[in-house]
Amino acid sequence: MDEAGAQEMITPVLHPLGLWQETNRTNSAGFELMRIDDRRGASFALGGTAEEMFVDLVRKFQISYKDLPLNLYQFSSKFRDELRVRGGLLRVREFLMKDAYSFHTTEEDFKREYATMLDTYTRIFSELRLNTIIVESDNGYIGGEYCHEFIVESQTGESTFLTTEDGSYAAHEDVAVSITSPYESAETMLARTDVYGENTIGVQQLSAFLNIPVEKTTKTMLFETEKGEVIAAAIRGDLDINEAKLQLAVGCHSLQLASPDKVKDITGAEVGYAGVLNLPPSVRVFYDKSTKGRVNFEMGANKTHYHTINVNFGRDLPEPGQFYEFKLAKSGDLTSDGKKLIKRKGVEVGNIFQLGYHYSSLMNANFVDENGQELPYYMGCYGIGIGRTLATVVEIHHDDRGIIWPESIAPYQVHLIGLNLEDEEVKSQAEKVYQDLTEKNSEVLYDDRLDISAGEKFADADLIGIPYRLVVSKKTGDQVEVKKRSESESMMFSFSELLTLLD
Amino acid sequence: MDEAGAQEMITPVLHPLGLWQETNRTNSAGFELMRIDDRRGASFALGGTAEEMFVDLVRKFQISYKDLPLNLYQFSSKFRDELRVRGGLLRVREFLMKDAYSFHTTEEDFKREYATMLDTYTRIFSELRLNTIIVESDNGYIGGEYCHEFIVESQTGESTFLTTEDGSYAAHEDVAVSITSPYESAETMLARTDVYGENTIGVQQLSAFLNIPVEKTTKTMLFETEKGEVIAAAIRGDLDINEAKLQLAVGCHSLQLASPDKVKDITGAEVGYAGVLNLPPSVRVFYDKSTKGRVNFEMGANKTHYHTINVNFGRDLPEPGQFYEFKLAKSGDLTSDGKKLIKRKGVEVGNIFQLGYHYSSLMNANFVDENGQELPYYMGCYGIGIGRTLATVVEIHHDDRGIIWPESIAPYQVHLIGLNLEDEEVKSQAEKVYQDLTEKNSEVLYDDRLDISAGEKFADADLIGIPYRLVVSKKTGDQVEVKKRSESESMMFSFSELLTLLD
Repeated sequence: MDEAGAQEMITPVLHPLGLWQETNRTNSAGFELMRIDDRRGASFALGGTAEEMFVDLVRKFQISYKDLPLNLYQFSSKFRDELRVRGGLLRVREFLMKDAYSFHTTEEDFKREYATMLDTYTRIFSELRLNTIIVESDNGYIGGEYCHEFIVESQTGESTFLTTEDGSYAAHEDVAVSITSPYESAETMLARTDVYGENTIGVQQLSAFLNIPVEKTTKTMLFETEKGEVIAAAIRGDLDINEAKLQLAVGCHSLQLASPDKVKDITGAEVGYAGVLNLPPSVRVFYDKSTKGRVNFEMGANKTHYHTINVNFGRDLPEPGQFYEFKLAKSGDLTSDGKKLIKRKGVEVGNIFQLGYHYSSLMNANFVDENGQELPYYMGCYGIGIGRTLATVVEIHHDDRGIIWPESIAPYQVHLIGLNLEDEEVKSQAEKVYQDLTEKNSEVLYDDRLDISAGEKFADADLIGIPYRLVVSKKTGDQVEVKKRSESESMMFSFSELLTLLD
Repeated sequence: MDEAGAQEMITPVLHPLGLWQETNRTNSAGFELMRIDDRRGASFALGGTAEEMFVDLVRKFQISYKDLPLNLYQFSSKFRDELRVRGGLLRVREFLMKDAYSFHTTEEDFKREYATMLDTYTRIFSELRLNTIIVESDNGYIGGEYCHEFIVESQTGESTFLTTEDGSYAAHEDVAVSITSPYESAETMLARTDVYGENTIGVQQLSAFLNIPVEKTTKTMLFETEKGEVIAAAIRGDLDINEAKLQLAVGCHSLQLASPDKVKDITGAEVGYAGVLNLPPSVRVFYDKSTKGRVNFEMGANKTHYHTINVNFGRDLPEPGQFYEFKLAKSGDLTSDGKKLIKRKGVEVGNIFQLGYHYSSLMNANFVDENGQELPYYMGCYGIGIGRTLATVVEIHHDDRGIIWPESIAPYQVHLIGLNLEDEEVKSQAEKVYQDLTEKNSEVLYDDRLDISAGEKFADADLIGIPYRLVVSKKTGDQVEVKKRSESESMMFSFSELLTLLD
């Protein structure tokens, strides 16, 4: 980060709640935001990310275009009131994050920084021996228009993403787009009919039962927003809804599938028979693009056990003013250039966000340009989850005996094992190795335990996974046995060779 | 800390409240403790110190005497719900602390560690160019039996302490002890009398008015504890009460002077006429040692404008079962070996605490000894306030132009000023200096601003206070001008000399 021109600082964990109110994140962060009042009655948020804190800091200075660009970063504890934690350090309520915030005069300058950060993050992860896949992703509660995640492929991860085989396309499942073969036909409209079909579960069964192509069936699902509004989403029966995309279409912060009682209340029917026909006018309806152009399509009848066939826009339903794209992309789907998508899983270790004017305009945070005019900054933000990254390094770099730490982040560089330490000569030799390496600024963990077998010491060294294992014993004499954790062969070195080796 | 054998780790900011309940610190930390519930209903304390967290961690392992001693430390955010903050970073609600916790098999081994930490802290502060005075101090809400503070003398500090001129004695005002010349006499008891004395304010005036030595007067003060109990404290009129010591005598966590209404309610008199005679029996009375042995002494009559003279223990008041030591030591007082005390002020930058078995016994945290028996650990803890230390360094190391950072903690080692940078040759020379020094791992702040005068650049460099100021300009040619922030003369160096100088 320093090499990339960023500057380290730190902001408090307790964020004045008023700052989060300025950007409406007290609402958009939802239940994940932890709040606390002090005894004077002042309200705070426990920082989840720190956009407002950094904007508030920078806006306190009368900065000009000469002071920009500016990239500020910190390592600090972050808080998310997760309902469920999982995967050890992968998803927890309190974690260490390296977060950075950049400020720019123009979008163009931001794009240069975004590219620099993309490169910097790639290099950071590469130093940690992590291969990251950079995928387009969803903004979540951060705001802004586009962002990318750095994902390490792993079955333990909870990020699902899709890529082409050649890697030319990579996107988080929440935003991945694949083509949908349109289903349009020039049929004549037929008479709309309600068909009794008890226990026809699933679109395949339904399509067989009704003897229509599955593309003519429609899935209608009811959701409740964080404000309690119920909305309906309709998609072609052979496709699935992507809730993250639907959320964007609706313009809300969270969506929950309406409860069976709610569905019955609104449609008058049991779950499984919902459709758009005859919904109360208060329920806004969102149509996926896949529903466009169809003639004589099917829908739930909003009557238990009944399906309506031969529904048509313009006759039975008003022609929708807008079709949205909220289809869930799947393995095997094709990209717009005809390449097959593969579904993969991994851990999101970092992310970079375009924020644009989102925060600066909401917080009235400006710089003075060449002409003395006040303009909002163009912004970006960049995060790395430290604990999660550490866990991922261990996930990727281990064998059945333990961790194999990459040298760049090993807690110690050298694991020195002393054997036969009851022998004064051996003991003083081992201690000399320890002293000399320590003085040369090697980080050495010295296992000087007595009453522990050599086997146990070796097993512990493998478990802890420090890159270099050194052994000093009666057998090694004037030399030192050196073994890399990542290799199986050990070698003997004289003491002076050792210092050169580890320099 | 590493050299002293301690190991770095980190614990969360959110401490499960149950841990603080185990040690009763939910009560003893009082209002300074910030609490928060998550949405599942779990309760947490925002860590003020982390004794419980570390004990909880260690007790989860079946540790044996072979695993001890153990000293674990962290740098992390700490929280205190202070009513008032002051002095910039000196007293704030959230701050960075380096805290360490040590675990021992015996008191003897702890004492060795306590001495090691005392020495380590002294060396740390000395590297920061801070002269610390090590004073005996009060445990506050940490617990344990004894502790020492590291204080940097400064008028901005809020710690008051007393030392002898030779430094053989140094103690925080809260615990400092000085000798009190006893006032005992073999007089015959005289008849107790209430004397009318309106507006006799202060003991000197009172003693003159009553024509008795000031030592025969008595100050009686009423306090309320955190539980709402009212207690009375009586001390010789020529002395003052030390509330921290009184708190220990009472065995409570906080004391507040009773309000005038409360005083009137309890004594039946206005403030200024309180005494021990005729107090309601619910009010516990604490006598300072100085009140012992006096005959025919004075006291407030608990009647507005009245003082009672010729009061005697055993006749007018029951002979106290115990006398306490809660006198405030003052400048000019003498120590037990006859040395004069001087009152001084300073900033407490660190502290070390004996905790003994306090936490381990309350938390049932044990180790297994040589005989397989479970015993509680003997503990200590050790803290340095990072922000406060930084502020103190600036307080001590500055002149009227700005900060003079000690090299050990300067944010950059070198402040490189480029002048005449519109000249391509000068610019490339300056950039070469920047690159080469950076590659040699010097931390360089490069002032490459255009349109800023040399004077402004020099002033900014003095303000920021980086140890070495380098200038590259048209005038310096092949050389570089070097000036230390702490010195007034600059010198010219060739580029190769420079690299050697800064190595």
